[in-house]
Amino acid sequence: MPQGEALRELLLSGEPGRWSAMSEALMMYAARVEHWRLKVSPALQRGAWVICDRFADSSMAYQGYAGELGPERIATLHKLTLGEVQPDLTFVMDVDAETGLARASARVAAAGEAATRFEKKSAAYHLRLASAFREIAKANPERCVLLQAAGDRQAIAAEIWTIAQARLGLVA
Amino acid sequence: MPQGEALRELLLSGEPGRWSAMSEALMMYAARVEHWRLKVSPALQRGAWVICDRFADSSMAYQGYAGELGPERIATLHKLTLGEVQPDLTFVMDVDAETGLARASARVAAAGEAATRFEKKSAAYHLRLASAFREIAKANPERCVLLQAAGDRQAIAAEIWTIAQARLGLVA
Repeated sequence: MPQGEALRELLLSGEPGRWSAMSEALMMYAARVEHWRLKVSPALQRGAWVICDRFADSSMAYQGYAGELGPERIATLHKLTLGEVQPDLTFVMDVDAETGLARASARVAAAGEAATRFEKKSAAYHLRLASAFREIAKANPERCVLLQAAGDRQAIAAEIWTIAQARLGLVA
Repeated sequence: MPQGEALRELLLSGEPGRWSAMSEALMMYAARVEHWRLKVSPALQRGAWVICDRFADSSMAYQGYAGELGPERIATLHKLTLGEVQPDLTFVMDVDAETGLARASARVAAAGEAATRFEKKSAAYHLRLASAFREIAKANPERCVLLQAAGDRQAIAAEIWTIAQARLGLVA
């Protein structure tokens, strides 16, 4: 998806504070609308299951709660652009900010990339962000599951699979 | 303003139909928010007069009326991002689509640039666009003046100046 990728590239490069929170939100939603239109929606229509690493909750957390636009404006933007589109099931993986940043840095280093503009933000910002994701999970219990994710990768994967089977009615 | 310029570049390049109308609107508003935040608002605050070639009416015409999102969704997007911000006075320059496109092509050729994605769209699109701008002018008489602009450049400039003086109370 060259459109969305080009937009994400523009957003993630450069210095912290390069874009206002509102511009970030608009550009993220432009990328998301294209992702929905060109990838997710056609896949659902042909009966596929779609798994996304991040979706609209990230805009709500980054630009809504932690980016200081407030949740109402992001909700308005979501309704305007994607209407009632939401995942059937969302896993929010909770780790302390230090562990989370260390994992992100390791992932980025392994891929041979530089840290993005978001990773350069302050520790206080990342604490606000973590608490934003927790609030989103609490506010949307019908589709969100908050997981403690500091532990072993295999154990967490197993837990996710058990919960997904139960929530999505995949077990008899 | 490198942010807005980079976004505009991304939007104007490539083929017609590359972006959905909603993505176009979101990206245009992201560029407009940055333009307002970094250029227009600081200039107004130091007491300068600001003249823009195009502002939010273009989103309303291109993505709202002619781009098939509908005027209500663009109005919602404007309110969300810029609130009550509108120009004090807007001149809508009306020419037949043929003359308009010929002028745009000549301007683009003179600058040694390629035609943008918008100029490549169909004649029917440009007719819808012209009628959209006329509707916007009619719907906002308190700030819009519709001018017949097929004539001589100097004469039109003189007419604009006379109207601006009267509308903005610049004459005793």
